[in-house]
Amino acid sequence: MLSTNRIKFLRSLSAKKTRADEGLFTVEGVKPVAELLGSPIKIHSVYALNGWIMEYNTQLAASGAEVVTVTEKELERISQLSTPNQVFALAHQPQTILNINALGDKLVLALDDVSDPGNMGTIIRIAEWFGIDTIVCSPNSVELYNPKTVQATMGSLFRVHVFYTELKPFVEEYKAAYNNPVCAAVLGGDDLYASPIKAPCLLLMGSESHGLSAELINVSTYKITIPAAVGSKAESLNVGVSTAVIVSELRRRG
Amino acid sequence: MLSTNRIKFLRSLSAKKTRADEGLFTVEGVKPVAELLGSPIKIHSVYALNGWIMEYNTQLAASGAEVVTVTEKELERISQLSTPNQVFALAHQPQTILNINALGDKLVLALDDVSDPGNMGTIIRIAEWFGIDTIVCSPNSVELYNPKTVQATMGSLFRVHVFYTELKPFVEEYKAAYNNPVCAAVLGGDDLYASPIKAPCLLLMGSESHGLSAELINVSTYKITIPAAVGSKAESLNVGVSTAVIVSELRRRG
Repeated sequence: MLSTNRIKFLRSLSAKKTRADEGLFTVEGVKPVAELLGSPIKIHSVYALNGWIMEYNTQLAASGAEVVTVTEKELERISQLSTPNQVFALAHQPQTILNINALGDKLVLALDDVSDPGNMGTIIRIAEWFGIDTIVCSPNSVELYNPKTVQATMGSLFRVHVFYTELKPFVEEYKAAYNNPVCAAVLGGDDLYASPIKAPCLLLMGSESHGLSAELINVSTYKITIPAAVGSKAESLNVGVSTAVIVSELRRRG
Repeated sequence: MLSTNRIKFLRSLSAKKTRADEGLFTVEGVKPVAELLGSPIKIHSVYALNGWIMEYNTQLAASGAEVVTVTEKELERISQLSTPNQVFALAHQPQTILNINALGDKLVLALDDVSDPGNMGTIIRIAEWFGIDTIVCSPNSVELYNPKTVQATMGSLFRVHVFYTELKPFVEEYKAAYNNPVCAAVLGGDDLYASPIKAPCLLLMGSESHGLSAELINVSTYKITIPAAVGSKAESLNVGVSTAVIVSELRRRG
C-alpha cells in the first residue's frame, strides 16, 4: 500500500521544478516502462499492478529499483494519464555532460526554443531513427522530462542524449573546433536539394512560432529551405516534419 | 444576439454525424477563418466579435455568408476551443468527385486508416507544401472535418482535395488506367534512397497502429522503407513524418 506521503511525493513530480530539484522524472505505461527497463537509465522506483510485476520480475530485479505493488485505485491517484496503464516508474535524470570534442564526426541537431512537448518528443524519435545521438536545446526549449515529451519519444528519450545550453556560444565553440557546416533551417534560404551540405555537420532548427533567432542565423554557414511546390500557399512545415526531411536528405547523402 | 435554437444547432455540429447530415463543418480562430475567406470553399455563416467583423468586412461581403455579431460570452458557448479566438465559421463541405482520369501525371497520396486527427491535418499540410492536390483515404480514416484535423491543416484543408473511398478497388482502377508505380510504405521494404520510383505515382501510407493492410501491400508494385541508422532501436516513424520524408525524396527527384 502507498502511504499518503509517498502519493504526495509522486504527484509533486508533475511539476517541472520538483523534477529538476529531485533529479527525477516519471515514465508511464507498459511499453515506455519496458523500454526504460531495457535502457541504461537508472530507475528509482516502480509502482505497478501485481500482474505487471509478475511479468517483468527478472528485469525488475536486475534494475535494482524499489518495486511497489499498487491497486488500480492507487495507480489512478498517482498517474498523470487520463487512462493509467498498469505501471508508473520514477527514473533518475541522467547526468551527462555535453562534450564538444565528441561531436566532430557526427550529425548534431540543435533546437532553438522548440516549445511543444509533442514536437520535442517526435524530434527525439526522428533523431534516433536516423542515428543522431546528440541534441542540443536552447534553455527556453520545452523540458525533456515533460510527461508529454516522454510519451511522444516512444522510448527514444532513453537512448538519445539531450542537452540544454545557450546556443550561440555553443555554435561558436563548435565552429572553433570544426570546419563542418553549420546549417540553419530557414524560410527563403537555399534549396535543400541543391545545397552541398553533408554530415558531419550541425543542423539548427527554430521554434514553431518564431523560427530561428537572428543571432543563430548569423553564425550559421549555410541557410537552407525545403522547397515548396510552385503555387503552394502552405506557410511552413511543422518543425518535427522539417527536421525529418532535412536529416533524411543528409543521411541519403551518406 | 444568438437564439437558443441557433446555439443548439451550432453546438450540434461538434458531432461527426451532424456535420455529415448537414454537409457543413466548423472553422475557428482568426487565422483559419482568414484562410477560409481566401479559399474557394462556400461559407454558410460567420459568428464573430464586432472588431473582427469590422476588419474583415470586405471579404465577408464578397463571401455571401450570413454574418452574426456575437459577444465573447456567446462565442464561448458555441466554440469547441478551450480559448475561443474571435470568430467561429460554418462552411459547406465541398462536393467534389474523385476523377481517376485526372490523376495520371500527379503524385497522389492514399491513406489507409490514419486515425489521429493531428496526423491527418499534418499530412494535408505536408501535401500542400509539396504540391500534392489529391489525397484518397480509406473509409475508416479519421474524418477530414474533425475540428482537430481542421486546426492542424493550418488552412491547407481548403486547398487540397481529400476523398474517402475503399482503397483496394481504387488502387486496382489506378493500375488499370496507368503504368505509374504504386508504392507501399512498409517496414522492412526496399531502401527508399536506392529505389527507382519517381512521380507520377501513387503512394500508400498505413495507419499509426497497424501500418498498411496486407491487401494493399499485395496490390502495390513497390515496397519502400525509410532506412533507419544501423543500431537504431526506434521501432518506427510517425506517419506524418514518414509521409514528408518519402514525398520530399520524390520531389527531389523531380
